[in-house]
Amino acid sequence: MQKKKAALERRSGCPLNASVEMLGDRWSLLILRDMMLRGYETFNEFLHSDEKIATNILADRLRRLESYGIVETEQDPSDGRKIIYTLTPKGIDLAPVLTEMVLWAARHEETGNQPLIRQMRTGKAELLDSVRERWDKLRRDRERLAGMRDEL
Amino acid sequence: MQKKKAALERRSGCPLNASVEMLGDRWSLLILRDMMLRGYETFNEFLHSDEKIATNILADRLRRLESYGIVETEQDPSDGRKIIYTLTPKGIDLAPVLTEMVLWAARHEETGNQPLIRQMRTGKAELLDSVRERWDKLRRDRERLAGMRDEL
Repeated sequence: MQKKKAALERRSGCPLNASVEMLGDRWSLLILRDMMLRGYETFNEFLHSDEKIATNILADRLRRLESYGIVETEQDPSDGRKIIYTLTPKGIDLAPVLTEMVLWAARHEETGNQPLIRQMRTGKAELLDSVRERWDKLRRDRERLAGMRDEL
Repeated sequence: MQKKKAALERRSGCPLNASVEMLGDRWSLLILRDMMLRGYETFNEFLHSDEKIATNILADRLRRLESYGIVETEQDPSDGRKIIYTLTPKGIDLAPVLTEMVLWAARHEETGNQPLIRQMRTGKAELLDSVRERWDKLRRDRERLAGMRDEL
């Protein structure tokens, strides 16, 4: 039901419009990059990424990504005051979008991170598979750990 | 040289950052969709698209897309006061980005345009090829016409 309501509130029914309404800003995809490729998971880690996002914008974007079901939060088991951010399966499914944006910029602009680009060019499918596998494993481990804690 | 200068002015050297600095807003990709998939080419056509972009924002986005070399303009040969917007090869190369964003939203959100989504799911490579072919042909025809006009 929530899905339908959101759709009705959009500017149009076009799927591309749905994507840009959720992700069309200068920061959200960079936060997802930090999670997906760099393994960042705390507010502080995102805050110190190269592009220097402002604290209030970061807080707003994380809240929005969570409300869209792209990111989820949990308390750090070793420090209850700390929040850990992880990608949901919906968030992991954005890997092909990020990959195509990286490849496009690498083709047409002067950019850094050439090793990643070479890996994406020569083995896009393998890279996407490994990102998905790593994240699926991470999720399973987390759920198992949470289950063990509940039993204690 | 212009390419290098732009890179130095960016927030980071990351290729994904280059992409979101150029395309990370709620409108640019929709304008490119209108050109790529719907064949729109005039200011007025973009203005009347479903999402109802405001005149000043549309003017700003078209100017930016042109400055990035994604879109180019020419005078309409049949009406010198009218400007025609077309995709450059760099703009056409965004087709995979648009496709992945459409597929992601179609998978996780309630959206319209199911026929396009089915076509993208079952024949992504063929669809991308046909978009590229159509646009390449359009560009060649335009250049030939411009050459003929210059000779007259």
